[in-house]
Amino acid sequence: MVGGEPQDIIFTSGGTEANNLVIHTAVKYFREGNKQRHDGLRDQKKTQGTYPHLILSCIEHDSVRLPVEHLVKEHEAEATFVPVSKASGQVEVDDVIAAVRPTTCLVSVMLANNETGIVMPISEVSQQIQALNQRRVASGLPRVLVHTDAAQMIGKGRVDVQDLGVDYLSIVGHKFYGPRIGALYVRGPGIVTPLHPMLFGGGQECNFRPGTENTPMIAGLGKAAELVNKHCEAYEAHMRTIRDYLEERLKAVFEEQGIHFSCQLKGSKRLCNTSNFSILGSGLQGRLVLSRCKTLLASVGAACHSEKGDQPSSILLSCGIPYHVAQNALRLSVGRDTSKEDVDLIVEDLKQAVAQL
Amino acid sequence: MVGGEPQDIIFTSGGTEANNLVIHTAVKYFREGNKQRHDGLRDQKKTQGTYPHLILSCIEHDSVRLPVEHLVKEHEAEATFVPVSKASGQVEVDDVIAAVRPTTCLVSVMLANNETGIVMPISEVSQQIQALNQRRVASGLPRVLVHTDAAQMIGKGRVDVQDLGVDYLSIVGHKFYGPRIGALYVRGPGIVTPLHPMLFGGGQECNFRPGTENTPMIAGLGKAAELVNKHCEAYEAHMRTIRDYLEERLKAVFEEQGIHFSCQLKGSKRLCNTSNFSILGSGLQGRLVLSRCKTLLASVGAACHSEKGDQPSSILLSCGIPYHVAQNALRLSVGRDTSKEDVDLIVEDLKQAVAQL
Repeated sequence: MVGGEPQDIIFTSGGTEANNLVIHTAVKYFREGNKQRHDGLRDQKKTQGTYPHLILSCIEHDSVRLPVEHLVKEHEAEATFVPVSKASGQVEVDDVIAAVRPTTCLVSVMLANNETGIVMPISEVSQQIQALNQRRVASGLPRVLVHTDAAQMIGKGRVDVQDLGVDYLSIVGHKFYGPRIGALYVRGPGIVTPLHPMLFGGGQECNFRPGTENTPMIAGLGKAAELVNKHCEAYEAHMRTIRDYLEERLKAVFEEQGIHFSCQLKGSKRLCNTSNFSILGSGLQGRLVLSRCKTLLASVGAACHSEKGDQPSSILLSCGIPYHVAQNALRLSVGRDTSKEDVDLIVEDLKQAVAQL
Repeated sequence: MVGGEPQDIIFTSGGTEANNLVIHTAVKYFREGNKQRHDGLRDQKKTQGTYPHLILSCIEHDSVRLPVEHLVKEHEAEATFVPVSKASGQVEVDDVIAAVRPTTCLVSVMLANNETGIVMPISEVSQQIQALNQRRVASGLPRVLVHTDAAQMIGKGRVDVQDLGVDYLSIVGHKFYGPRIGALYVRGPGIVTPLHPMLFGGGQECNFRPGTENTPMIAGLGKAAELVNKHCEAYEAHMRTIRDYLEERLKAVFEEQGIHFSCQLKGSKRLCNTSNFSILGSGLQGRLVLSRCKTLLASVGAACHSEKGDQPSSILLSCGIPYHVAQNALRLSVGRDTSKEDVDLIVEDLKQAVAQL
């Protein structure tokens, strides 16, 4: 499904664990490399006494952002959060490269954002980092590892680790109709690419992730991956058609000047299945609108986060969406079985909710 | 099922994660306490500049032993492995207490051993540690936390955290006919008892263990727990009857002097479902005997470990079983549905295998 070798897949309990494992690995890799560099070469002190430096986009999922912030707080790492362009909603490759320091050991940028659906330029980041790494290794600096969290993208567009050129890629089962486990793709774990376990135990998964394997869930993940592999283009085409129809209907009902699509940004590719929009006007905060809906169930931001009142999504704000627009945001996703009739129903539902308010 | 409060249960991916989480917590707890003690009281320097000290039994599962050995190797902790009595197969309470140092922050002793089935005196350990803790806290020393891995015991005998008096107890679904996830019991997590997360992310499980909850598996774990809660005594009685019948038949077929039961030790309680025995004689190594069996599937040691050739189990050796006897060990377990007819079949199978060899 992702174009890797069987031995490159490490099963985990989910995306959170996969993402945490990459960050844990990068820090350990830096420290061990530092030790070796100083044991071997007395003049290579460029990174001595320093902390590992990690580069993230400012719109990463909490399971990437928070473990890094924790390390920073504990004085175990330094981090740069690269902003996204307000024009494209994308991370700019130049900004990522400009953030690299001698102590940088990881770049982690998600493949597509979970709230806006905007697809990030991962291949370009990887290419530039690869060129940089050749010079770095020659001068005794640690290699910069590249990770992408592909949770949102898999099943909604082709994902290929060779095209992407990444060292790590996170896979999350329930995002592509699979069970609630995950996996981490690692390019040659322990040989080509470092991987340091967080757990120790019975030796499963080549000691990279011990614990009795959750075989039924792994089989389910395999089946879901097989379906994605076979039908990805068909799924994508269907979801895009239905999502585009949804946006068309919303525009027709609320009129061009009455609705703002935060997910439509010039020059940026986006996921086929999601729409993020705000129905403009005061008293139309996302949560209020949803509370008046009779059939629609949706989220005002990331579905996995607890309710935070009417505070607008920080992701939308960092994409340059004005505060009063972001406050009204609704995030709707369509699936493999969503029909135009479903769309008609929920647009009608939104219409009456807004009329009430 | 274990007598705790709902908020005391933290779902994990399994026993390995639950056990690793406890060890991670103990070390963090020590370090944070150390920081506070030195910030507040300049004369309380008893633990300054020192490492957290952990006490384990020498027969712990790899998911307890290995994370601790890793910390010792990385110079992040010190550890004492308390031997088991060769007479009883049990850890002696006095030995555990004698191992306590000013820097001790955790005692981890399994509730029942997975290879011998011997039940450990956890209540007694907890009682003595509690008495010790009162004196320690008064003199500015860290409290000693008590953990037991109850993987082997749950579903085979009543487990009650109040009787046991422990701070942490590991629960493993597939050991009691549940799905392959686990949970950690923590007495008042974050309030009464420290709990430091290993993963950071979307805030699930009160931030103690983030990641989208594996709801289907959690529901399955709940159902399995309900069944254990209702029928524990019946399960236990059935398994004990069948296991005792197995041992009786083995004695009848191989005669008293031809078989040694490593699981039968004077004065020690043991699990109702397992038997660990060696058919005596040269050329009767466990693996050889199993290879000649036609219907019996069993293990020579812990089922979750990879094959390690004819090397005898270190657990049996530490229980004082002679090398040539330990080499021949077979570990058989009966289940809720095992019948006397099943036993007759496999005893016959063992008989012909031994005759061949």
